[in-house]
Amino acid sequence: MSKVIKVNHVAIAVDDLEGALKFWRDDLGLELDHVETVPSEKVEVAFIPVGDSEIELVKPTSDETGLAKFIQKRGMGLHHLCLQVDDIDGMLINLRAKGVRLISEEPVELPGRKMAFIHPGSTNGVLVELYELLSEA
Amino acid sequence: MSKVIKVNHVAIAVDDLEGALKFWRDDLGLELDHVETVPSEKVEVAFIPVGDSEIELVKPTSDETGLAKFIQKRGMGLHHLCLQVDDIDGMLINLRAKGVRLISEEPVELPGRKMAFIHPGSTNGVLVELYELLSEA
Repeated sequence: MSKVIKVNHVAIAVDDLEGALKFWRDDLGLELDHVETVPSEKVEVAFIPVGDSEIELVKPTSDETGLAKFIQKRGMGLHHLCLQVDDIDGMLINLRAKGVRLISEEPVELPGRKMAFIHPGSTNGVLVELYELLSEA
Repeated sequence: MSKVIKVNHVAIAVDDLEGALKFWRDDLGLELDHVETVPSEKVEVAFIPVGDSEIELVKPTSDETGLAKFIQKRGMGLHHLCLQVDDIDGMLINLRAKGVRLISEEPVELPGRKMAFIHPGSTNGVLVELYELLSEA
């Protein structure tokens, strides 16, 4: 039985990474681990470890993405919650069987991880990402 | 120097606790620790441990609270991010000195914990709660 291990990250939609780091790094004193551009998802991400999880500041690099439209419509703010699971394929099978609506029917595989999104219509309005780290599988 | 220790919890605004537990507990397989009514804040909260953090499903018990208005305006969804700090008084002094706008100028003290909120205007739209557990001070 696949299970949730922890909160992998909380993602915050921002339109200006340096401006956002002013609060999270400079004011709050958190450490920026690194910034990464992910062309396949058209985002630039600042990774900020916090205890056993991370805060990710996510900035769209295109106006056409769901993330960009989220900011245009609602402004910057909490965007999604990523839960790390031990077996994403098993979890998706289980969720489908329970009638949960998935955004990705199959997980997307990136180096070192597999990920999938659950539709907010099944989660009380929360965009939930599931994450399996392959090195920990 | 006061510092952030971890993500204490991620709060999700819901208008129906039992309906919300259908996803988080029954579908996702997380365990409900307990449900608590907090009359001073006019909320009912379901506490769901996830790794070293918690997901809190927060339901308003009055239509007049900020939480109730959040749901009326934006629907259910991610509401706030709570960061646990080792010294909340020191953190608030530091944040004020850096020009960060606070909702509570002084922390509110409840049994076992002190808490304060930072205004979303200073945090890229994220309602950030700070939490100090007094038993761990």
